[in-house]
Amino acid sequence: MHFADSLTATSKAKAPICVGLDPNPDKFPKGISQDAEGMLEFTKGIIDATHDIAACVKPQMAYFELLGWEGMKVFWEVCTYAKERDLLVIADGKRNDIGSTCDAYADAYLNELSPIDALTVSPYLGSDGIKPFIERCAKNDKGIFVLVKTSNPSSGELQDLPIGDEAVHEHMAQLVESWGAELLGSDTNFSCVGAVVGATYPEELKYLRTLMPHCPILIPGYGAQGGGAADCKPGFLPDGTGAIVNASRSIIFASKGEDWQDAARKAAKEMAEDLQSAL
Amino acid sequence: MHFADSLTATSKAKAPICVGLDPNPDKFPKGISQDAEGMLEFTKGIIDATHDIAACVKPQMAYFELLGWEGMKVFWEVCTYAKERDLLVIADGKRNDIGSTCDAYADAYLNELSPIDALTVSPYLGSDGIKPFIERCAKNDKGIFVLVKTSNPSSGELQDLPIGDEAVHEHMAQLVESWGAELLGSDTNFSCVGAVVGATYPEELKYLRTLMPHCPILIPGYGAQGGGAADCKPGFLPDGTGAIVNASRSIIFASKGEDWQDAARKAAKEMAEDLQSAL
Repeated sequence: MHFADSLTATSKAKAPICVGLDPNPDKFPKGISQDAEGMLEFTKGIIDATHDIAACVKPQMAYFELLGWEGMKVFWEVCTYAKERDLLVIADGKRNDIGSTCDAYADAYLNELSPIDALTVSPYLGSDGIKPFIERCAKNDKGIFVLVKTSNPSSGELQDLPIGDEAVHEHMAQLVESWGAELLGSDTNFSCVGAVVGATYPEELKYLRTLMPHCPILIPGYGAQGGGAADCKPGFLPDGTGAIVNASRSIIFASKGEDWQDAARKAAKEMAEDLQSAL
Repeated sequence: MHFADSLTATSKAKAPICVGLDPNPDKFPKGISQDAEGMLEFTKGIIDATHDIAACVKPQMAYFELLGWEGMKVFWEVCTYAKERDLLVIADGKRNDIGSTCDAYADAYLNELSPIDALTVSPYLGSDGIKPFIERCAKNDKGIFVLVKTSNPSSGELQDLPIGDEAVHEHMAQLVESWGAELLGSDTNFSCVGAVVGATYPEELKYLRTLMPHCPILIPGYGAQGGGAADCKPGFLPDGTGAIVNASRSIIFASKGEDWQDAARKAAKEMAEDLQSAL
């Protein structure tokens, strides 16, 4: 099934939320070892606690890479585990390179047999660093989310620079919309080329939604980074489709005690309710 | 030793060239298996053939990631192997994320015990996605190369956009210069914060050199991508320091026959001579 159709259907069936798997070993609950074994136990535990609430998980590759190849082994095990539990898997790697190299990244993460449904990518190199990913999306029913306006405090240093009458992120949004314009789902009006826009910039999110009518938007920044449900709402269409909101730390590290799984489940439920009442 | 001092000394002792390790299994010489074992054999063979000619190697992470965690195991083995043969190791990962996540990437690749000397990073997220890397550079004598003007055909789509009187890449160059301004080596006038500027844009390279007087410049695009020695020259200071030129495919895939190591050695020697006569 086309990625945007899967994303929309799963979000409707559960909630348009994504649990960010950022397994920082320094923050593991008591009793979980700060190594690859502990990382696997922790991330599987979070998946078990939230898989029937969230539409997606988003493993943050940096934390797996932190433990070298052993961490990458855990990464792939976690992706497979999540996929088997009916979660869509968004690998957060923000990959980017020249075209011939992006072919390798695209084959690494978006091949036919990969448990990964979508990958985040960074657009500094322009379209020839993006097209290899889009080819795999079209061929293998996968998706990408291109960074447009990121949630961090310094995102404006480059992304808000003025180009004539518009900002860099607005220009980028129009490129992203054009890249996916001909690759829409059959059940929805969304393409397999999505965008990342942070909940921490709700005004920009509102305008960017109009510039990218066919792009699914991945909205990070809810929770620990300061974004609320009202900030995320402008990323959705009036019918409540078209966006997925990610929270990482506020869910997965909701408790460091023995109740960490219950606390993660409770935080995910509260987030789902918070969003559903705002939409 | 400060990264820029190591880079300058090693480039003087050998040649200011970097062998790009892009082990695309489809292109391996006959007789080398297209799996992790073959990848290790091939990359070690290239290192053996070129380690006394080149100052650096640049493993391209995409090709190692292509083989999953087994590929990442090879990546780390290759980095260690190169380091033991007096090569500086530039991991080409173009990593980028928000600050808290970049802490994890920085600890993954630029920790005290890492065989990696420098990492390429992508600047779309602004300074809080770069500072965690710079902190490790200062603490652990490591370096970064920030993408400024990349070698690929579509690099101008974002990087050449006009911001008032200047292009995005010129604005970025000034940020990169400022990020490293206080972190100069003791033997050289170069900082641990370098820039990536492609040989395929020699006019831009010439001007960017003036905007970043303290930044080592990593120059990809020589060889298979079309750049020549004359195109690279503007990246160097008049004394022949300050830049390192990378070639990947033209060296490592110089022959698919049994003579692949000899051919790689010959191609690296010719590249070193070509550059040295131009400088």
